[in-house]
Amino acid sequence: MRSELQLIDRIRSLASNIHGRGLAIGIGDDCAVYHSPGASEDLLFTTDLLVEDIHFRRETHRPEDIGWKALARGLSDIAAMGGEPRFCLVSLALAPWSDARWLDCFYRGLLKLAAREKTPLAGGDLGKSAKATCDIVVCGSVPRGKALRRDGAKAGDGIYISGELGSSALGFESQRGKARQKHLRPEPRIALGKHLRRLGATAAMDLSDGLSLDLHRLATASRLSAEIAPPPIFRGATPEQALHGGEDYELLFTAPARRVIPEHLEGLRLTRIGTMRKGSAGEVRINGAILRPLGYDHFRKP
Amino acid sequence: MRSELQLIDRIRSLASNIHGRGLAIGIGDDCAVYHSPGASEDLLFTTDLLVEDIHFRRETHRPEDIGWKALARGLSDIAAMGGEPRFCLVSLALAPWSDARWLDCFYRGLLKLAAREKTPLAGGDLGKSAKATCDIVVCGSVPRGKALRRDGAKAGDGIYISGELGSSALGFESQRGKARQKHLRPEPRIALGKHLRRLGATAAMDLSDGLSLDLHRLATASRLSAEIAPPPIFRGATPEQALHGGEDYELLFTAPARRVIPEHLEGLRLTRIGTMRKGSAGEVRINGAILRPLGYDHFRKP
Repeated sequence: MRSELQLIDRIRSLASNIHGRGLAIGIGDDCAVYHSPGASEDLLFTTDLLVEDIHFRRETHRPEDIGWKALARGLSDIAAMGGEPRFCLVSLALAPWSDARWLDCFYRGLLKLAAREKTPLAGGDLGKSAKATCDIVVCGSVPRGKALRRDGAKAGDGIYISGELGSSALGFESQRGKARQKHLRPEPRIALGKHLRRLGATAAMDLSDGLSLDLHRLATASRLSAEIAPPPIFRGATPEQALHGGEDYELLFTAPARRVIPEHLEGLRLTRIGTMRKGSAGEVRINGAILRPLGYDHFRKP
Repeated sequence: MRSELQLIDRIRSLASNIHGRGLAIGIGDDCAVYHSPGASEDLLFTTDLLVEDIHFRRETHRPEDIGWKALARGLSDIAAMGGEPRFCLVSLALAPWSDARWLDCFYRGLLKLAAREKTPLAGGDLGKSAKATCDIVVCGSVPRGKALRRDGAKAGDGIYISGELGSSALGFESQRGKARQKHLRPEPRIALGKHLRRLGATAAMDLSDGLSLDLHRLATASRLSAEIAPPPIFRGATPEQALHGGEDYELLFTAPARRVIPEHLEGLRLTRIGTMRKGSAGEVRINGAILRPLGYDHFRKP
C-alpha cells in the first residue's frame, strides 16, 4: 500500500473531472469550502474517523473521552481555517461489546464539548460493526472568502505554532499526568483560529499528525520550502515526540514577516519557529538539516 | 440493547439543550437542514454508514458496487427531501485485506454515480480498521423553506410509492437476475423527488429499511396513523419482501387527496397505496389489520 498522501493524490486524480456548483475548495485542505448563492458566509466541512484499536482501545479509553476526542478532531479542522462551528453529524457503528451505557457515555462526552462550542448535533447514522467506529462531520462558518488555507503562504513569511508540542505523544506513552489529559481531551483552538484570521495569517492548519508531516503538507500546498528551529517542547516530552508526535491539535500558521504577532493569544503562547522560502516544494529543514516527514501516516510501511 | 428508534430518541434527548444558528431541522428526518444568512437555498445534509459483514461481504460484493451503493444511499436521502446534490465527502477505513486495487475500484464505482449526478467529491478521511467501513456525507440543495419533510402529512392525504417493492430483498436472497442488479446498484430517485416537491407533496422519505418500518416513521413524525392496501410487488418477490425488505430506495410520499398525481413520472410508476388518518400516531394498518414495523433495524433483538 502507498502512503496516505499518495492515496489522496490518487483519489483526487480519479475525482478531478467532476465539477459542481458552489464548491470553492475540494480535496486537500483541512475542510471543503462551499458557498450558497447570496450568502454572506462560506461553509466549511470536515470529516474524521475514530476507530477502535487504531485511534483508541476499549480497555484504556473511557467512552466519554472517545466522544470528546471525536468532536475535538473535527472542531480543530474548523479552527485551522479560522471558522466557527455551526453543527455536527455523528455516524457511529457500535461493536458487539458496546452496550447502552457505553453509548450514553460516548454521547455525553461529545455533547459536553458540543455545548461549550455551541455546535448542535444535527443528525447522523447508527449501525453495527465488529469494531466500534465513529465518523464525525463538522460544519463551520467563515466570512465569505476569508477561510485560512494551507496554500496561502508566501516566501519570506514567518512560521508560527501555538503552545508546546509533544504532549499527546508523551501522554499516550506514559499514561500519566497532564500529558495524558491532553492526549485524552484535546482542546480545539477555535478562538485562536478566528483571531489569526483577523490578524492576517496567510496560511494555517492544525497539527494532527505531527509537525514534520503537517509542515511538509503546508509547504507542499504553498509550493515552498520551510526552514525552522526546534519548536517549544511540552515539559517531559522528547524532541522526537515534539517533531513527529500526532494529536497535539495546536495551530501551525504563517504570516508576513513584518506583521506583529502577539507572544500570547487566547491563553496560548505563540512562537515563531522559522521562515517559508523559495525552493523545493514541501522540503522542511531544521537547523539546516532535512527533516523527514515522519509524523503519523496510517499507510506508511514501517 | 434497545431498538434503533429508541436509541435515536435517547440521543435526541441528550442533545436537545444545544442550539445553534441556521439549523432548521435536526435529528429525525432524512437530512438535517441548514440555512446560510442571505442565501436563496437551504442545504441538506445526510450521512450513511456502510460496514463490511453488515451491509456487504468481501466475497459477494465487488468494490465498484460497494462504492456505488455508498453514494446511492446518501443521494437517496437528498431525493427524499426534494433536493439536488451539491457535493459529497467520503470517510473510508480500509481493512487489512483491502489493497490499492480495491481502493481504486471502490472510488471508480462511487465516482461513476457521482459524475452522473453532478456530485463532486469534496473531501473526506482515510483510515484503517479491522473491517472495511465507509461513511458517506452528501450535501444537497433545495429552494429556501421547500424541503420535503417526514412530518408534513395531513389527515386525509393519499399515500403513494414509486416503483415496485421487494426487489432488493429478493436480489439479496436469490443473487440472480435484475433483482440482484437492483440490490447491488440502487438508483436514487433525484429527479422524481424534485418533481414531487413541485407537485405539492406534503411529506416524503426514502424506503431504505422497508415499507412497514419507514411508513411507521413517517406516520409517527406526522402524528397520524396510516391505512394501506398491499403495495405493488416486484416480479418474483414475496409480500413479506415487499412489506419489510429494505434497500429498495423508492420514494414514499403523501399528497392532498384531490391533488392529481400522474400515474408515471420520470420513468417510474406512482401508485396510491392508502390514506393518512387521525388516530394512534405511527400505527399502520394493511387491509384493516395492524402491520408491525418489521423492516430492517440493526438493534432489534430477533
